Amino acid sequence: MPSDPRPRRSIALPLAGAALSALLVAAAPVATTPASPIYGVTLPDGYRDWRLIAPALEDAPLDELRAVLGNDLAVKAYRDGTLPFPDGAVLVKLAWKRTRSPAFEPATVPGRATTVQVMVKDSRRYPESGGWGFGRFIDGAPVDEAQHQTCFACHEARVRNHDFVFTRYAR
Amino acid sequence: MPSDPRPRRSIALPLAGAALSALLVAAAPVATTPASPIYGVTLPDGYRDWRLIAPALEDAPLDELRAVLGNDLAVKAYRDGTLPFPDGAVLVKLAWKRTRSPAFEPATVPGRATTVQVMVKDSRRYPESGGWGFGRFIDGAPVDEAQHQTCFACHEARVRNHDFVFTRYAR
Repeated sequence: MPSDPRPRRSIALPLAGAALSALLVAAAPVATTPASPIYGVTLPDGYRDWRLIAPALEDAPLDELRAVLGNDLAVKAYRDGTLPFPDGAVLVKLAWKRTRSPAFEPATVPGRATTVQVMVKDSRRYPESGGWGFGRFIDGAPVDEAQHQTCFACHEARVRNHDFVFTRYAR
Repeated sequence: MPSDPRPRRSIALPLAGAALSALLVAAAPVATTPASPIYGVTLPDGYRDWRLIAPALEDAPLDELRAVLGNDLAVKAYRDGTLPFPDGAVLVKLAWKRTRSPAFEPATVPGRATTVQVMVKDSRRYPESGGWGFGRFIDGAPVDEAQHQTCFACHEARVRNHDFVFTRYAR
């Protein structure tokens, strides 16, 4: 499991002129929001509009409804059965405390948003963690380094045979 | 609750020439898959790629994970807080039996797909059901008329104050 903080892409920006910065912004996802420790992963722009991979439920004590969304590369890889996922694939897991529907008692529905968790595939940037960078965010801010040190260990132990990704595409 | 079967748009097609049929197909969503009784609602093309409104869990005995997706008009209405929903808004609810994740015991994930349920807003076509047409499908085929007769009665009784729509947008 990687423990050395990786350089964030945004570190280089103050050194560059405005024109170069604009070029970099256009060319690659540059950190405009706080980045996760260890991995330097940020919340991707527009992820709430990405397509659904699958919903899930996490038991108590978390008691959360979740939905994993993927960018176009991730969705295509799932549908084509491509493993490992290609560089550029990004998965975002949204989570909410589940709460009883006020309108329909047998259903539970999303309540308060809790975490947003991101996996970014970049095999050159993240060679020590299966090619994946991880970020866990609460209210838009990354959680601490200790929490990020647990990400890959768990993915590696449990879903190495699915390119370290838990979620399967819901058909 | 409407009980008279409404004419399906496809009924007119055998009377028209090939050119006119092609025109109609291009101009409006014409039934290319079996349509629901009462409402004549079909599964919309490409709905699996629509954006997520919210996930949900239905308790036993159904024991289903669900995800409601919306077309662009529906998503915009949710985000803008527009009620009633505009004509053309469509919601699709996908449902799967939930099953214990083989990789992570505290989670349940989608298993076998069960129903796909569709709501289409067309206030002129469906004046007797709050402007909504309903369709419930299993393996792409609509369920019977008796089941469709229950749709609006339940929506009317429980969520009249939200334009007859249960699902809220998960933020």
